[in-house]
Amino acid sequence: MTKPRAELYGAPPMLLVHGGAGVIRRDMDADAERGVRAALAEALRRGHESAAAGGSALDAVTAAVVALEDAPYFNAGHGAVFTHDGINELDAAIMDGATLRAGAVAGVRRVRNPVLLARAVMEHSPHVMLAGEGAEGFAREQDIALVDPDYFRTGRRWRELQAARRQANRNEHVDHFGTVGAVALDARGRLAAATSTGGMTDKRWGRIGDSPVIGAGTYANAACAMSGTGWGEFYLRTAAAHAVCMRVAAMRQAVGEAAEAVINEEIPALGGSGGAIVLGADGALAMPFNTDGMFRGRIGNDGEPHVAIWPDEHI
Amino acid sequence: MTKPRAELYGAPPMLLVHGGAGVIRRDMDADAERGVRAALAEALRRGHESAAAGGSALDAVTAAVVALEDAPYFNAGHGAVFTHDGINELDAAIMDGATLRAGAVAGVRRVRNPVLLARAVMEHSPHVMLAGEGAEGFAREQDIALVDPDYFRTGRRWRELQAARRQANRNEHVDHFGTVGAVALDARGRLAAATSTGGMTDKRWGRIGDSPVIGAGTYANAACAMSGTGWGEFYLRTAAAHAVCMRVAAMRQAVGEAAEAVINEEIPALGGSGGAIVLGADGALAMPFNTDGMFRGRIGNDGEPHVAIWPDEHI
Repeated sequence: MTKPRAELYGAPPMLLVHGGAGVIRRDMDADAERGVRAALAEALRRGHESAAAGGSALDAVTAAVVALEDAPYFNAGHGAVFTHDGINELDAAIMDGATLRAGAVAGVRRVRNPVLLARAVMEHSPHVMLAGEGAEGFAREQDIALVDPDYFRTGRRWRELQAARRQANRNEHVDHFGTVGAVALDARGRLAAATSTGGMTDKRWGRIGDSPVIGAGTYANAACAMSGTGWGEFYLRTAAAHAVCMRVAAMRQAVGEAAEAVINEEIPALGGSGGAIVLGADGALAMPFNTDGMFRGRIGNDGEPHVAIWPDEHI
Repeated sequence: MTKPRAELYGAPPMLLVHGGAGVIRRDMDADAERGVRAALAEALRRGHESAAAGGSALDAVTAAVVALEDAPYFNAGHGAVFTHDGINELDAAIMDGATLRAGAVAGVRRVRNPVLLARAVMEHSPHVMLAGEGAEGFAREQDIALVDPDYFRTGRRWRELQAARRQANRNEHVDHFGTVGAVALDARGRLAAATSTGGMTDKRWGRIGDSPVIGAGTYANAACAMSGTGWGEFYLRTAAAHAVCMRVAAMRQAVGEAAEAVINEEIPALGGSGGAIVLGADGALAMPFNTDGMFRGRIGNDGEPHVAIWPDEHI
């Protein structure tokens, strides 16, 4: 379990990303680890380039999450896990801390970059959350890129589904979860958060996890932005992202203290697990997790990406 | 606008219900008003009977919301509003404050009592939130009563859809929203909350509002339970129910103060409107709203239902 961290890294723009906390050490070979680290660094660079070119915190998290969705290593976009019925159902959310505007989509099957659809929901619809075929109809109206469902399919995730089905048949616990996300602080002091996921391997019955739920896996206000990754049901029950950001905004807790209390205390006390990336308006950050590892990274105003996976790596 | 109220009404069991805050005075004729008041009183009696027979707070809110779903006067279950495509899509959620267990369903079209399916999700699935056809598949496995979609149809709601379409064509603001909900405190000091809705008249694109979102329209913890009714997008953006309950549980605010701050200050400051029913573990209650009226009611341990619609009615 990582210790609370709330260090100040100086002036914005700042960007944190995660690629999931469902990593298990024995699953990783050296090639995969190199690929994951390169993909995290690339996502950080893409977000930073956007910010360096004058983009907002919203632009930075959008660019970073698109890069993570497009990479095959993470459970979002291309590379998403399969549902029980062998399809990919994708969820995403985005929130602008400065205005409390938010957009989210759940259960889409043809949207190449769900975070772009979530942003279109926020900016071009009167709604916050759209689901399923209706959300895809909105995507068509907005000229959001649609792809054949086969685009999301990777051999690795298909094999994971087969393994999960075998485990489920033996009543073993299946905990293949993962997510990607980003939080950013821009030069004007605005915060934003975004999260995207394929959900839980072998999920059934149209399950919606925490990622597309504003307040659970994703939240941002004027003082704090969080993107979570973990066992979504526990993030929903604790309204985890809102709980962390309300501790920072209304209870004046430090970012590290707030993140530790919710992610490493409240959620494990209920039986859940996972991690999060949290950024404060003062530049304080926290990346708590209580799993074996969390794909994560940070980039500051020097434009140098720093990435990590295991608990003993400090970035 | 109502003033904050946090009066103590003595010993549990206690139950509050609402039937929506989208009432407009000129829409109500005397017959409809009598029907609404009788239906609210009946829901209160049903919940109270359950509690008086030894049921939990969960049982009380379930019984009350089933009664409100079955009544044609409210936008939930039979009597739900129509989507843009002329169908009824129903959402519901339930939460147990003592354990933070929760269940929710979104976008179901054949489930007679969505609150019963939300409770089954909480008690008989590993998930918190299920959507669409997948949720209906789970309903079948759980022997939850399904009905022909025509069951939900009422002539009044169909006429409202036609009116909403005409308004939308003229770019007028359409604010037909409504919901039903209940919060209860049982003899063992446990709180629960439940909410059920047909969403927004003329809604499109698979829109999900606040009602089925744990933390937005529905939340309960050990200190507080809330069910909201209003312009859902603003309840999502403020994580309204979690915000109220966190103010009570973690910031030690009085129920009336917490409810007033979120429902009558934060939400209107963003441009939203609506109301809520909130109950504390100490028996304090609040029923704030900033619309013309809110269908609401209270029943205490004397078993006498008290109902109200307009701001000047105290119950």
